[in-house]
Parts: sequence; C-alpha cells; structure tokens
Amino acid sequence: MKIIEGGICAPKDFLASGIRCGIKASAAKRDLALVFSSRPCTSAAVFTANLVQAASVTVSREHNQAGKIRALIANSGNANACTGPAGLEAARRMAQLTAEKLGIQAEETAVASTGVIGVPLPIEKVEAGIPELAASLNSLGADDALEAIMTTDTRKKCMAVEFSLPEPAVGCCGTESGQDLSRRGGERKTAFEAGGEASPLRIGAMVKGSGMIHPNMATMICVITTDAAVTAPMLDRALRRAVNRSFNRLTVDGDMSTNDMALIMANGAAGCCLIDSEGPAWEAFALALEEVCAGLARAMARDGEGATRLVTVTVDGAACEEDAAALARSVAGSSLVKAACFGADANWGRVLCALGYAGVAFEPEETSVTFASAAGDVPVCKNGGSLPFSEEKAKQVLLEEEIEIRVVAGKGPGRASAWGCDLSYDYVKINGDYRS
Amino acid sequence: MKIIEGGICAPKDFLASGIRCGIKASAAKRDLALVFSSRPCTSAAVFTANLVQAASVTVSREHNQAGKIRALIANSGNANACTGPAGLEAARRMAQLTAEKLGIQAEETAVASTGVIGVPLPIEKVEAGIPELAASLNSLGADDALEAIMTTDTRKKCMAVEFSLPEPAVGCCGTESGQDLSRRGGERKTAFEAGGEASPLRIGAMVKGSGMIHPNMATMICVITTDAAVTAPMLDRALRRAVNRSFNRLTVDGDMSTNDMALIMANGAAGCCLIDSEGPAWEAFALALEEVCAGLARAMARDGEGATRLVTVTVDGAACEEDAAALARSVAGSSLVKAACFGADANWGRVLCALGYAGVAFEPEETSVTFASAAGDVPVCKNGGSLPFSEEKAKQVLLEEEIEIRVVAGKGPGRASAWGCDLSYDYVKINGDYRS
Repeated sequence: MKIIEGGICAPKDFLASGIRCGIKASAAKRDLALVFSSRPCTSAAVFTANLVQAASVTVSREHNQAGKIRALIANSGNANACTGPAGLEAARRMAQLTAEKLGIQAEETAVASTGVIGVPLPIEKVEAGIPELAASLNSLGADDALEAIMTTDTRKKCMAVEFSLPEPAVGCCGTESGQDLSRRGGERKTAFEAGGEASPLRIGAMVKGSGMIHPNMATMICVITTDAAVTAPMLDRALRRAVNRSFNRLTVDGDMSTNDMALIMANGAAGCCLIDSEGPAWEAFALALEEVCAGLARAMARDGEGATRLVTVTVDGAACEEDAAALARSVAGSSLVKAACFGADANWGRVLCALGYAGVAFEPEETSVTFASAAGDVPVCKNGGSLPFSEEKAKQVLLEEEIEIRVVAGKGPGRASAWGCDLSYDYVKINGDYRS
Repeated sequence: MKIIEGGICAPKDFLASGIRCGIKASAAKRDLALVFSSRPCTSAAVFTANLVQAASVTVSREHNQAGKIRALIANSGNANACTGPAGLEAARRMAQLTAEKLGIQAEETAVASTGVIGVPLPIEKVEAGIPELAASLNSLGADDALEAIMTTDTRKKCMAVEFSLPEPAVGCCGTESGQDLSRRGGERKTAFEAGGEASPLRIGAMVKGSGMIHPNMATMICVITTDAAVTAPMLDRALRRAVNRSFNRLTVDGDMSTNDMALIMANGAAGCCLIDSEGPAWEAFALALEEVCAGLARAMARDGEGATRLVTVTVDGAACEEDAAALARSVAGSSLVKAACFGADANWGRVLCALGYAGVAFEPEETSVTFASAAGDVPVCKNGGSLPFSEEKAKQVLLEEEIEIRVVAGKGPGRASAWGCDLSYDYVKINGDYRS
C-alpha cells in the first residue's frame, strides 16, 4: 500500500468541485461541494448517534438505505440542524436538485451540512449555486471540494492510497474467498481478475472537522471514494470497523455533533472483480480503509480547535481491545490531561486519574506511564507509583508537536490507541464567539 | 430554616483548627486542618467512584465502616494518591497520630488529602504539625480549617443553617415517626423533646474544590457537621440523597478525582432525640442537608477554575428526575456550551446538541430553550427550532455573573437542575502548569 496524491479524485471516475454560493459570510470562501462518480456505486455510511440530528443526516440516512449513493452535495457555513420541517424540506431539495442536474435518482444522492446550528439554511443560495457546481465537476476538483466543506479547520485533511488485493489468480475473488472464510492467510489462491494480474485499487478520502469532536463521532463530514468493487453489505462492514478504530477513538472536546457522517462510495472502476464476502480480499480492502481513516483521525486531532499538539494515547495490557480503547479515550479526553499537555507539564497523576474513571477495569497497581516524542522517552510512573525523572527532560519531550502517552494497564492482551490534542487558550477563543 | 454564621463550628460542640505545616510551597498558606466533635458521633460518607483512589479515601472508607467518625484531619498541597504502600502507611499514620492526640480511637478518625497526585506525602511535616493543630482546636476555628483545605479555590465555600424538626410533642420522634412512615405530613404529632419545645438544630459544612470536578464527584472534600442525633444508617441515607441532588449535579471540567469525599458527623449535642428511621423528622433533616449541599455545589460551580460565570441548567418536562438530571448535566458539561457562555454568545444550537448526546430519551421537536439572568429572559428556541430574538439583549443577559439555561424537553414530570461554569482562558492557564 502506498500513499498517493489526488484525495477523493484519486480513485478512477470520481469527479469533484467546490464553489462559493454565499452561505459563508466571507466573500472569499468556498461553501458548496460536490463529489460524483460517473458510474453507479455501492455505498455505506455511518451517522451521528446524537438524538438531535441535522436534516442532512435524516435525508442521507434514508437515501443510503438502498446502498447506491454516488453523489454527495455538501455545504459549509450552516449545519441545517434544529431547523424543523423547513430544514428537512431544504435538505430534500438539495438532493433532488443535485440529482436532476446530474441525471441520477435523488436516492443516489447524499447531503451534508456543517456550520452553525439553528439558523435556517438559505436554500435559494444553494439552488442558485448547483448549476455552476455541477458544471465545474472535474477529476482535479478534490481540493476545491475539500475547501468548501471546511469551517474552523485550519488544515486540509485528505488522503489517498493505492494497494493491490492479495494473491491474484484465475477466478472471482469475491465468491471464492467468501467460500473459504476459515482459510484467511492460508495457501489457497484467491483471484481478483480474469487475467490473473491484479490491478491496483485506490481509496481516497477527505474529512472536515476540528471542534465538537468526540467518539460517535464529531462535527465531521468524511467522504471516502474507492474504485474497488464491493457489495454494499461488505462496504458497510469495512466502514464500521474502520470508523470504530479511527474516528471513534478521536476526541477533541467531548462534544458529539448533530451532523456527523462518514460516507463511502465504491464504483468498481479499477476493474477488479466484486468483493462480496469476507476473506483475504475483503480484509485487504478493509485494512487499507482503516489506514486511511486512522490517518485522517490523526490529522483531525492535530487540527483540533486551538490545538498546538497532537496527543496519541496508547494503552497496552488491558483485558481486551475495547477496554484498551476506552482507557485511551478517557485519557485523551480529560480536560486536565489536555491542559497539562498544553503546558508541557508531565503531570502523570492526571493520566492515572483519567484511567480510573474510564468505566472499565484495569490494574492501577500494575500501571505504568511513559511520555514520549521525537525528543525521547520519559518513564514517569511504574506500578501505579512515581518514578524519579528529570522535569527538564520531560518538558523537552512534551514541547514537541507530536507527543505520545504510553500506558501499560496490566498484563492483558488488549491494545488500542486514541488521538486527541491539547486544550489551549485558542480553543476557548475560537468557541467563545463562533457565530460572530 | 435560616442561614447562620459559623460554618462547621455552628453546630454545638464541634471544634476546628487550621495551621501551616509546610506541605504547600507558599510559606503563608495553611495546609493542615482538623475538625473534631468533643462528643462521640455517628457518621456517614460517600467517596469517589474512581478506580484509582487516594490512600486517604481507602483509610477513611475503612474507618467509616463503624459509622463513628468524630474527627477529620485533612491536608492540602498533596493528594497522597498514586503513592503506593508508603502512601497508605502515611494515611494510616495521620489518622493514628491524630486519634492519639485527641484521646480517641483511630477508627473514629477520617483522613483527607488534596493537591498534586503522585508525589509522596511528607508525613514528617504532618506529624510535626499535629500537636499545634490539636492545641489550636476551638469553636471559632472553622475559617482556619477551611483555608487549610483550599488549593486552587479562590473563594471560601462554607454554609450553616439552623432549623427545627416539625411538630414537637411528647415522646421520641425517632421511634414514633419510624412506626408511621405512611403518615408523612399527616396530623399525628411527632415529638422531638421530652419537654415538647423543639430545640433548633444546626448543620454546618465546608467544601474544597474548583477543578477536576464532575458528577461522582470532584476533587472535593466536603465536611459536614450537625448537632442533630441521627443513626448512622439514616445519616447515610440522607447524605446519599443530598449528594445525588447537589454535588453529583455539578460539573466543572469532566474530570473525576481520586480524592473525593463527603463526610457528615452528627453529635446529637442539640438535645433533640434520635432520628432512627424515615418520617417527618428525617425528612426535615434530609431536606436541610440537601439545601446545604446544593448551596455548596452552586458555590463550587461559581468558583470553578477560571470561571467567570455560574451557569445553572434547569431541565423540565423530562420523563423522570434522573433523566432531567442527565440532560441538565450534559448541557452544563459541554465544552462548547461553556465556551459560548464565556463569550456571552447565545448559541442555543449547542444546548440542543448537548441534550442530544446525554444518553437519555427526550423530545427534540418539543424542546424549548431560554437564556435567563438578572438582566431578563430571552427565549431562543421553541419546538426544537429557532425563535427570533435580539442578539443584543441575549448578550446582556449572558454577560451577568449568574446565568440560567432553561430547557423544556417534553411533557414529562421530570425536573432537575445542574450547575456548571464557563470555560475561560484562565481554566487553561491554571491547569496548563498546575504543579509549578
């Protein structure tokens, strides 16, 4: 697997565009994005678990029932949430008008919105923008589309990878690997192309989100494209696992948004045959997807509102992966740990404290903590108690832009990482008057 | 019930003292406190639910098993948490030495510590301080004791009330009311003094805590004294209900401490007879206790680290009280709501968003939100959607030091309040380098 350029347009036959339609106050900023596959797609999506859901979430969830989404229209500057029946109508209209313009069904179109909550979406601006938006679709439009979904984001967060499915040979990968779930990694050859030579596949993704970010999930819009051919159920399974191991292990401020959505569209344009069951091909695809999502999750943590540091918390020795993830998230989400990271203060007691209220069992008396970064490693706690360490050295380590908090929480097999960022003055500044 | 002066020394026969023993870096600050009843007591206590518990919590929990705590020694400047077997030994020694000096049993003594985690407690300083501490015990020492348990607290948080039990008559209140639980508020006379005239009772309390504060509970030490006579089980029941309706509805930063403790000691010195079962007498006592705890919880929110505003969130119309409390806490705990309060920004969408991830059901489409303060009321959301309102007026309302976010979340009977504060630059500053 290698990282490539091109973002959401890296996979074949995906086009994108981003224009300014006037929702954002700033006259210079794009605020309307379109992503479109020129071929039919299978699709999968996960949505916010917040009981208060944006109109776009309601509509996209409905449309994705059939698993055939091939276009996404997204606006920034307005979340179209808490906007009542008029908001729902506006979201439906966004999808309908986009579908008409593209010559596809409304059910093949997803809608996303991000921005301020509770203000009516100026649908007439979206409506007026759609012709230009559709006309500007092109295979180099990924960057424009990405710009158009950003709000307080300060970095463009996108990624694309190219990879091949394992062990190409004669026959159809999907069916064969599906018949042999038990022999993952075994000797039997699975095949992905009639010719035997594996075409490379691509996954591209872009993501928006830097505040209101917490497991399950965040004010995030994540759009993923791939030219692999994957059935909707297999796409769904891969997406859920990838999201669980990436965006759901990310926390910026503990707030779960009304608008979160991660959508994947697969158009099969690479020419590999269909992945329609688990097996080595699905596993290879799912791992590549996970890699992309994890890369974006780290990028989101680094771009957390006001963040000056990316904080990775790794927990080893927990009873199981889920327990390790819960412990890691609790540390990454602690306001006090985050403030200590901002101050480059090796206050490991706060790490233990946050482990203690994670809600899962672990062994405080067997717990150790190490602060690490490019500047070195500083073990600060062993068996739940303090180790002598150089405060000066620890400060150096914690002043790096990327820091790691390594925890061993017992002797179990569970291991997981979570990503977060520090809590800075700027977080308060950015969120103290977001609407102005 | 009336509010009186005197704090923890307001109830009869309670003495207190606070001295400087040298744990805190600043030479001017008291850091060792003692509270003592000259008579035997019944006691009840609740402790942190954090899996990582300070040595003082372990020892105080053990000693409170018998329900006879009559003395508390507390230090600030060091939490004696994550300090291993030596820390536990130090906590036991603190209790033992205090008991010896006071001529009581170690099991009648509780220990509390607050301050930095993971640094060995300098027990020799405590040891050297105990003689002076015991010698300075006096009935006007509440203020000194309170000073000696403060860390980042900027205000002294204490309260005392005087109240009478209902319907004094001949006979013993405890036994009688216990026999007649079904007739609460009925005509039958319960009695509290052989003479028929009700003596007033007093409850006094002091609390420490301004950061690392969250339901269940906070870096809080709460010491409550009363000259009522209450059996340990009835004291326990009253304390748990009061804590659940006060400190457990308070959130400053979402961090639950390793050291939280709320302790009540009842010495019966007022001369009322024993409350040994539920009934009007217990209810009157429990309500007074709840009032005291709620007053202190509000004071803690107001004194939240870096706080510029006290934020009370009141939820009405939920399915039950517990659901209302969960919804209110979720709003009070949202970093984005807190930052908006700091910025006096009427961003009610964040309120709905926080309701949505509270984890309990409610009716988004029937939800309304009003911002209120001494400057007036501004309804901003009705039926889950926006109301037209004056931004200028809303700003005025939110610039007050005490603001209220009133939510109606449906048509249910559940109602509860939660208390929090805004998230300011100073929170970050205070916690960015707490140890320095």
